[in-house]
Amino acid sequence: MLTANYIGDRTITVDEREPQALRPGEVRIAVAYVGICGTDLHVFHGDMDGRVTTPATIGHEMSGTIAELGPGVEGWAVGDPVTVMPLDWDGTCPACLAGNEHICQNLDFIGIDSPGALQESWNVPASTLVRLPDAVSLRDAALVEPVAVAVHDVRRSELAPGDKAVIIGAGPIGVLIATVAQAFGAEVVIAEIDPRRRAVAEEVGLRTLDPSAVDQVAWVEEWTGGAGADVVFEVSGAAAAVLGATALAKVRGTLVVVAIHSQPRPIDLHRLFWRELRILGARVYQRQDFERAIELVAGGAIPADRLITRVVPLPEVATAFADLEAGQAMKILVQVAR
Amino acid sequence: MLTANYIGDRTITVDEREPQALRPGEVRIAVAYVGICGTDLHVFHGDMDGRVTTPATIGHEMSGTIAELGPGVEGWAVGDPVTVMPLDWDGTCPACLAGNEHICQNLDFIGIDSPGALQESWNVPASTLVRLPDAVSLRDAALVEPVAVAVHDVRRSELAPGDKAVIIGAGPIGVLIATVAQAFGAEVVIAEIDPRRRAVAEEVGLRTLDPSAVDQVAWVEEWTGGAGADVVFEVSGAAAAVLGATALAKVRGTLVVVAIHSQPRPIDLHRLFWRELRILGARVYQRQDFERAIELVAGGAIPADRLITRVVPLPEVATAFADLEAGQAMKILVQVAR
Repeated sequence: MLTANYIGDRTITVDEREPQALRPGEVRIAVAYVGICGTDLHVFHGDMDGRVTTPATIGHEMSGTIAELGPGVEGWAVGDPVTVMPLDWDGTCPACLAGNEHICQNLDFIGIDSPGALQESWNVPASTLVRLPDAVSLRDAALVEPVAVAVHDVRRSELAPGDKAVIIGAGPIGVLIATVAQAFGAEVVIAEIDPRRRAVAEEVGLRTLDPSAVDQVAWVEEWTGGAGADVVFEVSGAAAAVLGATALAKVRGTLVVVAIHSQPRPIDLHRLFWRELRILGARVYQRQDFERAIELVAGGAIPADRLITRVVPLPEVATAFADLEAGQAMKILVQVAR
Repeated sequence: MLTANYIGDRTITVDEREPQALRPGEVRIAVAYVGICGTDLHVFHGDMDGRVTTPATIGHEMSGTIAELGPGVEGWAVGDPVTVMPLDWDGTCPACLAGNEHICQNLDFIGIDSPGALQESWNVPASTLVRLPDAVSLRDAALVEPVAVAVHDVRRSELAPGDKAVIIGAGPIGVLIATVAQAFGAEVVIAEIDPRRRAVAEEVGLRTLDPSAVDQVAWVEEWTGGAGADVVFEVSGAAAAVLGATALAKVRGTLVVVAIHSQPRPIDLHRLFWRELRILGARVYQRQDFERAIELVAGGAIPADRLITRVVPLPEVATAFADLEAGQAMKILVQVAR
């Protein structure tokens, strides 16, 4: 079978390998599509070389059908269309025992810490499977994982219908959070300095704001009748954005930090105090986020056609990384099935 | 009547003044005791010269008895023992309309934005009065306001019985938060580098930790069976303490920033993300915090005798500021009534 592998030094190779034998409790998936995301780019850039073991078969946004059931797997049949929630927790750490298995203190994130979906035949624990309805095409289903990220972020914010939310950063996750927040009944604006990203956001019907041209604090004040935003999502990863984000939130408002900031960032703690703000970290997802994400994709709430810039066959996976790196694409899918 | 006034340049004068006439809805209080707090010291240091109008009668931690009722005041009688929740909100801003009057966007904090309690005869809106039970002495009742701060911080943290909490900083508010958290059923440890402050905390029965001598992350890991603390209260105001605070919290744990940080502070947002932490701002209090604080003082949960270092008569108020500045005292009360 064909597999795509990160071998270090900004290099992905496509190699022929023997499929692995199924272990008890595992299923073999015939992978259909794999989306390439920001985390995959981080791996590609070598930022996560301390964590991944090369050659590393990465990829965790995917869809496929069950090809084979391992010993002891029940409730699934060959041919079932599925996606995977790529989290494998130990079930015994304090976080798991408190019900937060999704951020297990010893979490195996499948596709980073163990082999991922960029292979024709992928073995995963049956516990990670999420059933896809017929209404969702396998192509669109490759978006379920990033939509689940957005659902998790929005649920974590406790955003309510009628709330006003500012999303800082119009990359794929920012656009999905804005879309999901709208689907949850919020009014949204997406702040983005890059005109190309603003254009994509506008194409999918989102209100945008250019913080390099507009006083965003005054804009949000005006938009919210002097209150400030109910929720602010920081999805840009920029230090200046985090520092400015607290000024956009209402009294007792919420800032969800979605972007990964590898360096400590200055935060306006006086504003946090003055307005009794709340800053929340949000990471990955829970099963109900996947279920809601599938509903949203199935119901047409996610503008899949606009978000998927291009689909490339597995042998051309390196071009997907190159285009994403160059900022030439929103979401590129790799078609794994021949 | 005698009044104490900040006139700028680290100077408090004691002056004879005419009492002001009562306006409708106000009561005149014969002030008994006034505690001097960190905010008063900030005013004294000139840090709040942009906010206070000199000469400024400051002071907002107090007790007294009602001396006179203004027009239209009902439900109160001359002689009633009271304390004051020194917040005057506009009732019309978005924060007030959302039920967060205590952090009204145009809040008048009485004792900073308008005249405070360091005067023998103090006029306040009757709406700010909080009734004192006979079980509480007027001396101890001067602690109700800072205890209400601590109650608000602990309530805001949503700390539950059996939780483990780390309090960073053993100043008066740190010690009160630790004491209140214990009264709410938590196990606590207070981290403090100053041996004098640690000694006071230990005298009132609190477990302490010296972060300059002990690896506090390892200590908390061990104490919590590898989970991390349920709640961390940052009460020190130190940049290093804030940066380190996130490492002490469990998955989905809470950091309450109590200290006032006038500069933006670096925060470990990667830890926030990784453990889905929650950082909360907390400011002043609500009426239920005062009511709970009075119960705690009345019930003996607050070690008033240990916390009140000294009581000075109003004419000697300047010595109270000098001693507090020199770190010579935990809490000094000014006895206003002659």
